[in-house]
Amino acid sequence: TNPIFTGMPTTIFEAMSALARETGAINLGQGFPDVDGPEEIRRKAAEVAVDGPNQYPSMMGIPELRQAVAAANRRFYGLDVDWQREVLVTSGATEALADAIFGLVAPGDEVIVIEPYYDSYVPIIRQAGGTPVFVRITPPEWALDADRLAAAFGPKTKAIILNDPMNPAGKVFSEAELGLIAELCLKHDAYVIADEVYEHLTFDGLKHQTLMSFPGMRERVVRIGSAGKTFSLTGWKIGYITAAPNLLGPIAKAHQFITFTTPPNLQAAVALGLGMDDAYFTDLAASQAAKRDRLSAGLADAGFVVMPCQGTYFVTTDTGPLGIDDDAEACRRLTREAGVAAVPVSAFYAGDAPTRFIRFCFCKRDEVLDAAVERLGRWL
Amino acid sequence: TNPIFTGMPTTIFEAMSALARETGAINLGQGFPDVDGPEEIRRKAAEVAVDGPNQYPSMMGIPELRQAVAAANRRFYGLDVDWQREVLVTSGATEALADAIFGLVAPGDEVIVIEPYYDSYVPIIRQAGGTPVFVRITPPEWALDADRLAAAFGPKTKAIILNDPMNPAGKVFSEAELGLIAELCLKHDAYVIADEVYEHLTFDGLKHQTLMSFPGMRERVVRIGSAGKTFSLTGWKIGYITAAPNLLGPIAKAHQFITFTTPPNLQAAVALGLGMDDAYFTDLAASQAAKRDRLSAGLADAGFVVMPCQGTYFVTTDTGPLGIDDDAEACRRLTREAGVAAVPVSAFYAGDAPTRFIRFCFCKRDEVLDAAVERLGRWL
Ligand SMILES: CSCCC(=O)C(=O)O
Ligand SMILES: CSCCC(=O)C(=O)O
Repeated sequence: TNPIFTGMPTTIFEAMSALARETGAINLGQGFPDVDGPEEIRRKAAEVAVDGPNQYPSMMGIPELRQAVAAANRRFYGLDVDWQREVLVTSGATEALADAIFGLVAPGDEVIVIEPYYDSYVPIIRQAGGTPVFVRITPPEWALDADRLAAAFGPKTKAIILNDPMNPAGKVFSEAELGLIAELCLKHDAYVIADEVYEHLTFDGLKHQTLMSFPGMRERVVRIGSAGKTFSLTGWKIGYITAAPNLLGPIAKAHQFITFTTPPNLQAAVALGLGMDDAYFTDLAASQAAKRDRLSAGLADAGFVVMPCQGTYFVTTDTGPLGIDDDAEACRRLTREAGVAAVPVSAFYAGDAPTRFIRFCFCKRDEVLDAAVERLGRWL
Repeated sequence: TNPIFTGMPTTIFEAMSALARETGAINLGQGFPDVDGPEEIRRKAAEVAVDGPNQYPSMMGIPELRQAVAAANRRFYGLDVDWQREVLVTSGATEALADAIFGLVAPGDEVIVIEPYYDSYVPIIRQAGGTPVFVRITPPEWALDADRLAAAFGPKTKAIILNDPMNPAGKVFSEAELGLIAELCLKHDAYVIADEVYEHLTFDGLKHQTLMSFPGMRERVVRIGSAGKTFSLTGWKIGYITAAPNLLGPIAKAHQFITFTTPPNLQAAVALGLGMDDAYFTDLAASQAAKRDRLSAGLADAGFVVMPCQGTYFVTTDTGPLGIDDDAEACRRLTREAGVAAVPVSAFYAGDAPTRFIRFCFCKRDEVLDAAVERLGRWL
């Protein structure tokens, strides 16, 4: 059996969700909302499922969705995108990441990964024959150290994977940090695989900026978006990649052998979603920011030390008040004993991980957040 | 960029469909029906899209669909399958193949591939670090030569990929051929990756048999099915894998990093489909057999030499009457000049391919088949 994948544990998101189901715990682990996104989007998916088409769409995605992705690039970032040559629809952002890594990385290449990181990056890099080079950022500031980052780049660097807004840190990279990354990529002729699935989930007036719009970066950035996260429909598994033709070509070659294409009814519905008015997107961010505030305040009241959060679905806290040093153990006990599932932040590191941090997901109904806080308070 | 995928052409199915769209040709190339499958299945997908759940389902697939796959294994093949440990739902059979190959093949392994073969097998084997070993079968009999097959097995053989019923040959492997494969796998301790997407599309009283039910093979076979093909909904991209736990474990590890999971509304609908009564499955095969007969007769009338077909969506013909030696050139000319797209059989070979055969897809409305035949007759 495969020496890379087989050596990996079951992904922590699935593992904690399974434990939550088994124990009846409130699931603040895996990142998904408990209220589905806009009914008009879901009705569109229903309509096309009934009326068709339901046969293989174009391998690149249906024209309406590729056009909608191109239009969203212009609307949100001022980018001029050719929908026919620069947009690919995928079966979720996880597949988009696999396609991008398999498409661009050759054996011997190095890929810079900022730790903590989403767990699929590293096994796929290795399966592509690449070597991950880690640059660690640490809480509570999660600041990117310029010297450490510069030291990670070298003659073998093919790409850096940047998750911004960043899970599990809840961090939005600053303009200065992005500028530094751009500068190093230009200097070392490297690409950026920009995992921007939380692009519409930034808070407190912060706006997501994509590296693709930085000077000189238009042809170097592979930008990945997620309908699941943008429309609160995580099960739909519709992702999209925007990239210059010379990058998208090899990525599409990987895609055609990995899933080939993506359900047309869901694609049509997401195309409609991307055309929704600005209020939808600002309300989404505002409602999630309110949930962040509600959970953060509740956790603090319960005795947790809660770290700041600028975006994503997640806040992290210190395990200190629990009196448990190991975050994985802490999460199992919280699930079994307090009845609230969370995710250990150590699962986002390749090794020698900090073990003092726990991630809670806040994209849940207020009464669920309140019940979770109540349970945690009682247990503590 | 990736040296394996990047070197591959755009898949022939997409290329010919794109040419058909561009030229307005009748598309008898890529294999998909032009009438969508059962309305009750589509209505179920619609209902769940509207009412939910629409968030991440279990990474292995929703319980109802895994149970339905296990029940179908019993109903159609008498197999006893543990739905919790032996069934995985994937985003289409193409992903299932990638998961199976990535999960089971380690660098240095050999994987036997019967030529002609579906084009995703070989690049994924290579990406997994494996080496394909080809065993060729040739028209019109497409018989599997026992000596050639035996010679392909050796100490490095990890698996054989068997597509049965077989695209593009329209062949159903005989009991004797399957017995031989089983014997060799047992002797050489090899697995079978059984691409059985056309399992319900066998004609003339032939019944599909799965190698999984051969003596000693239960723990050696990875059985892949396709809702797209079984329910005439090729765009849905729902596949399913049945395999013993020791094989499914590594395969699920690949799946979790490749797509992670599959849309729950489509899964729920397919679960309903797999529970449909026997008439559905027999009618499907009967109606496709009638279409095979209609297209075969029409092509023969028009002057083609049509080869026998025992299953799948496809008949193949000789290019002889066209007076064009190169099947790829013949297909381009048929598309542009006759207005009927088909697929060159040479695209299913790794090299040194026969260039005298063309594949036509017959799962189309009768009037479409008639119009295609009429166009071909006129052009010839
Ligand atoms: C693919 S499950 C992961 C969901 C998620 O992004 C998270 O919980 O971090
Ligand atoms: C993934 S498109 C291929 C459809 C098909 O199986 C074929 O046409 O052979």
